[in-house]
Amino acid sequence: MITTNETKIVAKPGHQDLFIEREFEAPRDLVFRAFSEPDLLVQWLGPDNLTMEIDKFDNRSGGSYRFVHIDERGNRYGFNGAIHEVAPPERVIRTFEFEGLPERGHVAMEIALFEVLPHERTRLKIQSIFKSVEDRDGMIASGMERGMNQSYAKLDELLKK
Amino acid sequence: MITTNETKIVAKPGHQDLFIEREFEAPRDLVFRAFSEPDLLVQWLGPDNLTMEIDKFDNRSGGSYRFVHIDERGNRYGFNGAIHEVAPPERVIRTFEFEGLPERGHVAMEIALFEVLPHERTRLKIQSIFKSVEDRDGMIASGMERGMNQSYAKLDELLKK
Repeated sequence: MITTNETKIVAKPGHQDLFIEREFEAPRDLVFRAFSEPDLLVQWLGPDNLTMEIDKFDNRSGGSYRFVHIDERGNRYGFNGAIHEVAPPERVIRTFEFEGLPERGHVAMEIALFEVLPHERTRLKIQSIFKSVEDRDGMIASGMERGMNQSYAKLDELLKK
Repeated sequence: MITTNETKIVAKPGHQDLFIEREFEAPRDLVFRAFSEPDLLVQWLGPDNLTMEIDKFDNRSGGSYRFVHIDERGNRYGFNGAIHEVAPPERVIRTFEFEGLPERGHVAMEIALFEVLPHERTRLKIQSIFKSVEDRDGMIASGMERGMNQSYAKLDELLKK
Protein backbone atom coordinates (compact mmCIF):
# COMPACT_ATOMS: atom_id res chain seq x y z
CA MET A 1 0.00 0.00 0.00
CA ILE A 2 1.29 3.42 -0.87
CA THR A 3 0.32 6.06 1.66
CA THR A 4 1.12 9.71 1.39
CA ASN A 5 0.40 11.58 4.58
CA GLU A 6 -1.18 14.95 4.09
CA THR A 7 0.71 18.14 5.00
CA LYS A 8 -1.69 20.42 6.86
CA ILE A 9 -0.97 24.13 6.73
CA VAL A 10 -3.04 26.50 8.85
CA ALA A 11 -2.63 30.24 8.36
CA LYS A 12 -5.34 32.30 10.01
CA PRO A 13 -6.24 35.52 8.19
CA GLY A 14 -4.52 38.54 9.68
CA HIS A 15 -2.09 36.54 11.84
CA GLN A 16 1.68 36.73 11.38
CA ASP A 17 2.34 33.04 11.97
CA LEU A 18 1.43 29.74 10.34
CA PHE A 19 1.26 26.13 11.51
CA ILE A 20 2.41 23.06 9.59
CA GLU A 21 1.58 19.49 10.58
CA ARG A 22 2.83 16.30 8.93
CA GLU A 23 2.98 12.68 10.08
CA PHE A 24 5.69 10.18 9.13
CA GLU A 25 5.72 6.36 9.08
CA ALA A 26 8.92 6.16 11.12
CA PRO A 27 9.99 6.50 14.75
CA ARG A 28 10.85 9.91 16.13
CA ASP A 29 14.60 9.36 16.51
CA LEU A 30 14.87 8.54 12.84
CA VAL A 31 12.82 11.54 11.71
CA PHE A 32 14.84 13.83 13.97
CA ARG A 33 18.07 12.45 12.49
CA ALA A 34 16.84 13.19 8.96
CA PHE A 35 16.49 16.85 10.00
CA SER A 36 19.83 16.96 11.80
CA GLU A 37 22.42 15.13 9.76
CA PRO A 38 23.81 16.96 6.72
CA ASP A 39 24.17 13.87 4.53
CA LEU A 40 20.51 12.95 5.15
CA LEU A 41 19.16 16.49 4.91
CA VAL A 42 20.54 17.09 1.41
CA GLN A 43 18.61 14.03 0.17
CA TRP A 44 15.16 15.44 0.84
CA LEU A 45 14.98 19.16 1.69
CA GLY A 46 13.64 21.32 -1.13
CA PRO A 47 11.43 21.10 -4.23
CA ASP A 48 12.08 18.36 -6.79
CA ASN A 49 13.65 20.66 -9.38
CA LEU A 50 16.36 21.97 -7.05
CA THR A 51 19.44 20.35 -5.61
CA MET A 52 20.69 21.30 -2.20
CA GLU A 53 24.10 22.29 -0.92
CA ILE A 54 25.06 22.84 2.70
CA ASP A 55 27.33 25.82 3.12
CA LYS A 56 27.28 25.69 6.95
CA PHE A 57 25.39 23.56 9.47
CA ASP A 58 26.60 24.10 13.02
CA ASN A 59 23.62 22.20 14.41
CA ARG A 60 23.53 23.04 18.12
CA SER A 61 21.92 25.55 20.49
CA GLY A 62 23.68 28.82 19.67
CA GLY A 63 24.85 27.57 16.27
CA SER A 64 23.87 28.64 12.77
CA TYR A 65 23.30 27.32 9.26
CA ARG A 66 23.37 28.34 5.62
CA PHE A 67 21.82 26.20 2.89
CA VAL A 68 21.70 26.79 -0.87
CA HIS A 69 19.17 25.48 -3.39
CA ILE A 70 20.40 25.27 -6.98
CA ASP A 71 18.21 25.04 -10.08
CA GLU A 72 18.90 23.33 -13.44
CA ARG A 73 20.56 26.47 -14.79
CA GLY A 74 22.88 26.81 -11.85
CA ASN A 75 21.05 29.69 -10.20
CA ARG A 76 21.67 29.65 -6.46
CA TYR A 77 19.08 30.50 -3.78
CA GLY A 78 20.58 30.83 -0.33
CA PHE A 79 18.88 30.91 3.02
CA ASN A 80 20.36 31.06 6.48
CA GLY A 81 19.60 31.41 10.14
CA ALA A 82 20.72 31.25 13.73
CA ILE A 83 19.88 28.19 15.81
CA HIS A 84 18.33 29.07 19.14
CA GLU A 85 17.89 25.52 20.43
CA VAL A 86 18.47 21.94 19.35
CA ALA A 87 16.87 19.62 21.94
CA PRO A 88 17.06 16.08 20.49
CA PRO A 89 14.83 14.35 19.66
CA GLU A 90 11.94 16.72 20.29
CA ARG A 91 12.52 20.40 19.51
CA VAL A 92 14.43 22.73 17.20
CA ILE A 93 14.04 26.52 17.28
CA ARG A 94 15.80 28.66 14.70
CA THR A 95 15.54 31.73 12.51
CA PHE A 96 15.12 31.71 8.74
CA GLU A 97 15.96 34.31 6.10
CA PHE A 98 15.73 33.89 2.34
CA GLU A 99 18.64 35.76 0.78
CA GLY A 100 16.82 36.41 -2.49
CA LEU A 101 14.49 39.05 -1.05
CA PRO A 102 14.95 42.67 -2.19
CA GLU A 103 15.91 43.80 1.32
CA ARG A 104 17.49 42.22 4.38
CA GLY A 105 15.78 41.90 7.73
CA HIS A 106 12.69 39.88 6.73
CA VAL A 107 13.44 37.09 9.13
CA ALA A 108 11.10 34.40 10.45
CA MET A 109 11.42 32.17 13.51
CA GLU A 110 10.60 28.46 13.28
CA ILE A 111 9.66 26.25 16.20
CA ALA A 112 9.69 22.57 15.19
CA LEU A 113 8.34 19.87 17.52
CA PHE A 114 8.73 16.14 16.93
CA GLU A 115 6.02 14.10 18.69
CA VAL A 116 5.94 10.35 19.27
CA LEU A 117 2.82 8.63 17.90
CA PRO A 118 1.72 5.02 18.53
CA HIS A 119 2.99 2.29 16.16
CA GLU A 120 6.43 3.88 15.71
CA ARG A 121 5.04 6.88 13.91
CA THR A 122 5.96 10.57 14.30
CA ARG A 123 4.13 13.84 14.06
CA LEU A 124 6.07 16.95 13.05
CA LYS A 125 4.59 20.31 14.08
CA ILE A 126 6.16 23.53 12.88
CA GLN A 127 5.14 27.04 13.85
CA SER A 128 6.64 29.74 11.63
CA ILE A 129 6.40 33.25 13.01
CA PHE A 130 7.00 36.14 10.63
CA LYS A 131 7.87 39.82 10.94
CA SER A 132 4.48 40.74 9.49
CA VAL A 133 1.30 39.30 8.00
CA GLU A 134 2.62 40.44 4.60
CA ASP A 135 5.85 38.47 5.03
CA ARG A 136 3.87 35.37 5.97
CA ASP A 137 1.48 35.71 3.07
CA GLY A 138 4.41 36.30 0.71
CA MET A 139 6.01 33.06 1.87
CA ILE A 140 2.78 31.15 1.24
CA ALA A 141 2.40 32.76 -2.21
CA SER A 142 5.98 31.76 -3.11
CA GLY A 143 4.96 28.11 -3.49
CA MET A 144 5.88 27.00 0.01
CA GLU A 145 3.22 24.28 0.10
CA ARG A 146 4.32 22.62 -3.11
CA GLY A 147 7.97 22.66 -2.07
CA MET A 148 7.04 21.23 1.30
CA ASN A 149 4.94 18.41 -0.16
CA GLN A 150 7.76 17.44 -2.51
CA SER A 151 10.32 17.59 0.31
CA TYR A 152 8.27 15.42 2.64
CA ALA A 153 7.52 12.89 -0.11
CA LYS A 154 11.29 12.50 -0.60
CA LEU A 155 11.72 12.25 3.14
CA ASP A 156 9.09 9.46 3.23
CA GLU A 157 11.21 7.51 0.74
CA LEU A 158 14.42 8.14 2.69
CA LEU A 159 12.81 6.97 5.95
CA LYS A 160 11.88 3.66 4.34
CA LYS A 161 15.54 2.85 3.77
CA MET B 1 18.81 71.04 31.04
CA ILE B 2 17.95 67.51 32.00
CA THR B 3 15.95 65.70 29.36
CA THR B 4 14.63 62.20 29.62
CA ASN B 5 13.37 60.88 26.34
CA GLU B 6 10.19 58.89 26.50
CA THR B 7 10.17 55.15 25.72
CA LYS B 8 7.16 54.44 23.51
CA ILE B 9 5.76 50.92 23.59
CA VAL B 10 3.01 49.96 21.16
CA ALA B 11 1.28 46.59 21.57
CA LYS B 12 -1.89 46.27 19.51
CA PRO B 13 -4.59 44.09 21.11
CA GLY B 14 -4.60 40.55 19.73
CA HIS B 15 -1.22 40.89 17.95
CA GLN B 16 1.78 38.75 18.85
CA ASP B 17 4.38 41.47 18.48
CA LEU B 18 5.18 44.80 20.09
CA PHE B 19 7.12 47.89 19.05
CA ILE B 20 9.49 49.93 21.19
CA GLU B 21 10.84 53.36 20.23
CA ARG B 22 13.39 55.44 22.13
CA GLU B 23 15.60 58.37 21.14
CA PHE B 24 19.07 59.06 22.49
CA GLU B 25 21.14 62.27 22.67
CA ALA B 26 24.18 60.65 21.06
CA PRO B 27 25.34 59.67 17.55
CA ARG B 28 24.39 56.27 16.18
CA ASP B 29 27.86 54.72 16.27
CA LEU B 30 28.09 55.40 19.97
CA VAL B 31 24.62 54.00 20.75
CA PHE B 32 25.36 50.91 18.68
CA ARG B 33 28.62 50.40 20.58
CA ALA B 34 26.77 50.54 23.90
CA PHE B 35 24.63 47.63 22.69
CA SER B 36 27.59 45.68 21.32
CA GLU B 37 30.51 45.91 23.72
CA PRO B 38 30.32 43.72 26.84
CA ASP B 39 32.00 46.23 29.17
CA LEU B 40 29.52 48.94 28.13
CA LEU B 41 26.45 46.67 28.08
CA VAL B 42 26.84 45.57 31.71
CA GLN B 43 26.74 49.22 32.79
CA TRP B 44 23.17 49.85 31.67
CA LEU B 45 21.15 46.76 30.67
CA GLY B 46 18.55 45.79 33.25
CA PRO B 47 16.44 47.25 36.05
CA ASP B 48 18.14 49.32 38.78
CA ASN B 49 17.91 46.62 41.45
CA LEU B 50 19.76 43.98 39.41
CA THR B 51 23.38 43.64 38.41
CA MET B 52 24.32 42.05 35.16
CA GLU B 53 26.79 39.34 34.25
CA ILE B 54 27.74 38.23 30.76
CA ASP B 55 28.06 34.49 30.51
CA LYS B 56 28.55 34.48 26.72
CA PHE B 57 28.42 37.20 24.05
CA ASP B 58 29.56 35.97 20.67
CA ASN B 59 28.26 39.12 19.01
CA ARG B 60 28.18 38.33 15.28
CA SER B 61 25.78 37.01 12.66
CA GLY B 62 25.40 33.34 13.55
CA GLY B 63 26.63 33.86 17.10
CA SER B 64 24.81 33.61 20.43
CA TYR B 65 24.62 35.16 23.89
CA ARG B 66 23.70 34.41 27.47
CA PHE B 67 23.22 37.13 30.07
CA VAL B 68 22.37 36.83 33.77
CA HIS B 69 20.66 39.38 36.00
CA ILE B 70 21.38 39.03 39.71
CA ASP B 71 19.31 40.50 42.55
CA GLU B 72 20.40 41.69 46.04
CA ARG B 73 19.93 38.21 47.47
CA GLY B 74 22.04 36.56 44.80
CA ASN B 75 19.16 35.05 42.84
CA ARG B 76 20.15 34.62 39.21
CA TYR B 77 17.84 35.19 36.22
CA GLY B 78 19.33 33.98 32.97
CA PHE B 79 18.26 34.72 29.42
CA ASN B 80 19.85 33.68 26.17
CA GLY B 81 19.45 33.67 22.43
CA ALA B 82 20.90 33.07 19.01
CA ILE B 83 22.10 36.02 16.96
CA HIS B 84 20.74 36.01 13.43
CA GLU B 85 22.43 39.18 12.22
CA VAL B 86 24.69 41.93 13.48
CA ALA B 87 24.90 44.64 10.81
CA PRO B 88 26.79 47.58 12.38
CA PRO B 89 25.75 50.28 13.00
CA GLU B 90 22.16 49.80 11.94
CA ARG B 91 20.58 46.42 12.67
CA VAL B 92 20.64 43.51 15.10
CA ILE B 93 18.29 40.51 14.86
CA ARG B 94 18.30 37.85 17.54
CA THR B 95 16.17 35.48 19.57
CA PHE B 96 15.38 35.86 23.27
CA GLU B 97 14.36 33.30 25.89
CA PHE B 98 13.95 33.92 29.61
CA GLU B 99 15.20 30.84 31.43
CA GLY B 100 12.93 31.38 34.46
CA LEU B 101 9.75 30.34 32.65
CA PRO B 102 8.05 27.09 33.70
CA GLU B 103 8.67 25.48 30.31
CA ARG B 104 11.17 25.85 27.51
CA GLY B 105 10.34 26.95 23.99
CA HIS B 106 8.71 30.33 24.68
CA VAL B 107 11.13 32.21 22.49
CA ALA B 108 10.79 35.68 21.00
CA MET B 109 12.61 37.28 18.08
CA GLU B 110 13.88 40.86 18.32
CA ILE B 111 14.64 43.12 15.40
CA ALA B 112 16.51 46.25 16.54
CA LEU B 113 17.11 49.16 14.16
CA PHE B 114 19.37 52.12 14.92
CA GLU B 115 18.41 55.24 12.91
CA VAL B 116 20.43 58.42 12.45
CA LEU B 117 18.57 61.59 13.51
CA PRO B 118 19.67 65.20 12.88
CA HIS B 119 21.91 66.91 15.48
CA GLU B 120 23.88 63.75 16.28
CA ARG B 121 20.90 62.02 17.80
CA THR B 122 19.72 58.41 17.38
CA ARG B 123 16.40 56.62 17.28
CA LEU B 124 16.24 52.99 18.41
CA LYS B 125 13.32 50.93 17.10
CA ILE B 126 12.77 47.40 18.37
CA GLN B 127 10.15 44.95 17.16
CA SER B 128 9.70 41.95 19.46
CA ILE B 129 7.79 39.07 17.93
CA PHE B 130 6.44 36.39 20.26
CA LYS B 131 5.23 32.81 19.91
CA SER B 132 1.73 33.92 20.92
CA VAL B 133 -0.33 36.88 22.07
CA GLU B 134 -0.26 35.33 25.57
CA ASP B 135 3.56 35.24 25.60
CA ARG B 136 3.68 38.88 24.55
CA ASP B 137 1.14 40.00 27.13
CA GLY B 138 2.99 38.00 29.80
CA MET B 139 6.21 39.83 28.95
CA ILE B 140 4.46 43.19 29.24
CA ALA B 141 2.88 42.17 32.58
CA SER B 142 6.29 41.12 33.93
CA GLY B 143 7.35 44.76 34.32
CA MET B 144 9.15 45.07 31.00
CA GLU B 145 8.39 48.80 30.68
CA ARG B 146 9.80 49.74 34.08
CA GLY B 147 12.96 47.71 33.45
CA MET B 148 13.35 49.28 30.05
CA ASN B 149 12.92 52.84 31.34
CA GLN B 150 15.52 52.25 34.04
CA SER B 151 17.92 50.65 31.54
CA TYR B 152 17.64 53.50 29.05
CA ALA B 153 18.04 56.12 31.80
CA LYS B 154 21.34 54.45 32.74
CA LEU B 155 22.29 54.30 29.09
CA ASP B 156 21.60 58.07 28.78
CA GLU B 157 24.12 58.65 31.58
CA LEU B 158 26.68 56.34 29.99
CA LEU B 159 26.37 58.05 26.61
CA LYS B 160 27.19 61.43 28.21
CA LYS B 161 30.61 60.14 29.24
